[in-house]
Amino acid sequence: MSLKEFSIIERYFKSLSGIAPGVVTGPGDDCAVLAPPPGEQLCVSTDTLLEGVHFPAHCDPEVVAQRTVAANLSDLAAMGASPFACVLALTLPANDDEWLEVFAGRLKSLLDDAGMTLVGGNLTRGGLSLTMTVMGLVPDGKVILRSSAQQGDDIYVTGTPGDAGRGLQLIDAPDDNTYLIGRYENPTPRVTTGVKLRGVATAMIDVSDGLAADIGHLCEESQLGAEIETGLLPLSKALRESAGADAETLALTAGDDYELCFTARPSDSALIQALAQECGHPMTRIGQMTGSTLIVRNQQGESLSDLEGYLHFS
Amino acid sequence: MSLKEFSIIERYFKSLSGIAPGVVTGPGDDCAVLAPPPGEQLCVSTDTLLEGVHFPAHCDPEVVAQRTVAANLSDLAAMGASPFACVLALTLPANDDEWLEVFAGRLKSLLDDAGMTLVGGNLTRGGLSLTMTVMGLVPDGKVILRSSAQQGDDIYVTGTPGDAGRGLQLIDAPDDNTYLIGRYENPTPRVTTGVKLRGVATAMIDVSDGLAADIGHLCEESQLGAEIETGLLPLSKALRESAGADAETLALTAGDDYELCFTARPSDSALIQALAQECGHPMTRIGQMTGSTLIVRNQQGESLSDLEGYLHFS
Repeated sequence: MSLKEFSIIERYFKSLSGIAPGVVTGPGDDCAVLAPPPGEQLCVSTDTLLEGVHFPAHCDPEVVAQRTVAANLSDLAAMGASPFACVLALTLPANDDEWLEVFAGRLKSLLDDAGMTLVGGNLTRGGLSLTMTVMGLVPDGKVILRSSAQQGDDIYVTGTPGDAGRGLQLIDAPDDNTYLIGRYENPTPRVTTGVKLRGVATAMIDVSDGLAADIGHLCEESQLGAEIETGLLPLSKALRESAGADAETLALTAGDDYELCFTARPSDSALIQALAQECGHPMTRIGQMTGSTLIVRNQQGESLSDLEGYLHFS
Repeated sequence: MSLKEFSIIERYFKSLSGIAPGVVTGPGDDCAVLAPPPGEQLCVSTDTLLEGVHFPAHCDPEVVAQRTVAANLSDLAAMGASPFACVLALTLPANDDEWLEVFAGRLKSLLDDAGMTLVGGNLTRGGLSLTMTVMGLVPDGKVILRSSAQQGDDIYVTGTPGDAGRGLQLIDAPDDNTYLIGRYENPTPRVTTGVKLRGVATAMIDVSDGLAADIGHLCEESQLGAEIETGLLPLSKALRESAGADAETLALTAGDDYELCFTARPSDSALIQALAQECGHPMTRIGQMTGSTLIVRNQQGESLSDLEGYLHFS
């Protein structure tokens, strides 16, 4: 670590990190030292966000912080895990004080809100790229996997998927689209919801590749199929008005919402509606787990094909 | 995750990962799920390696794997931690099958040797960059920090620092410099040594920025000074023959060796020499912790100045 690297960390990131329950030693040594509480398992995930791929080039540093934290927290949410600690590897093109100050300030407020401590990191010079590794806690045996859905389970999605995907399309024409663009720039990872779904959701995944693709992953891991009805999709008024006939396709194929998709026993439907009330966002039944393939049916009962999530690596 | 990303992970990385003691769920879900054994603390570190900065452009994918794993394992070694699990965020310019096959094959052998399981990752398209986050285990209270050196402690370094730094200078003229270049391309993180030094080393750091700079970090964290004698530096024959009068400066300022620098009570000197025998590499006393500033003295007893590690972020 060079003197400049050291001074950037001292100046902008020191106030973000520190000692919290379970954190024995924070940044400043070769490793952070953590003592996860007894009876808890540790959930770990890593996500890279690159300028021009996962956020627009030259976008606001607040948006960079928001999308980085959301992408990572969402993976914890999808396991039913409570945020615990994270490390951030930041690659920056230059020592831009204004950028760093805004970024670090927003990162601090996001981590504080999530109850997650920054325990270490890495700073390198290069094209703007952020790799965050998050750690969360779940009581032994309470983790919610993708692989544990049962045939006949209902399939739910939180919130109104597609809004962030439409927001990204409209990002250069912000005037009338504040809400949709806001869903892209500042998505809400469903961390509290994930925790409340322990013992209720039989399987869960976060919607990062697109709802249809992510249900596909859940089916594959659970070795089941699913039948989704587009008529049941919870489309926001803003999405319907802005995207018209494309609203359903966006809801099924756009990523970036970081909503949760989960399965539950049909007998738990009232419980789930009560949880939706508590969480302050809809949880909508959009279909059912079946024995074989994933089928998406439109309102005429016809099966749609050629739905796939956004290809990151094409 | 796109279909291509998925197929790359299936093809090249699936065999690297899996279930090991303490790994409840490996890759394939939103998070890995880990159950660190009771009575152990978790050490966590993240390091980014960029093409053209941390390894030469267009270098052998084996070298990329070796340097990535060494940089990360070395941070565990410096805490006295045993490797446990890791996640790898890989950013690749293209889907190059030959590159991926060689890289993944070498990564597998390195992780197997270290006893570390790959439990998750991320694949993105962009300039070649690797961010690994490693997790290691240390029994409660046995972690070796930078901050716990005592005045009067001896300062030791493992191996022969400077070799890798000289290797990097010679990388385009490999004929007569196989050993030195090998120390750069395939450094040996001192993981076993770190574990053996539990209860013996009073403080420890790995030499990644350069010996003088890293002793400076250790002094700062321990709120002490140090006196280093260049005449005590363990210079390899290869370094002396290749670098001549620059050998000492390289040993003091070049990074890349991933040796360990640690402090110990003078009364433990015989124990340390016995451990060096066991570990199969030298552990050399190069100075002593003092009450105030860091001073490096040459063989004439003169204090050197202007020593600093390689500036990553200048």
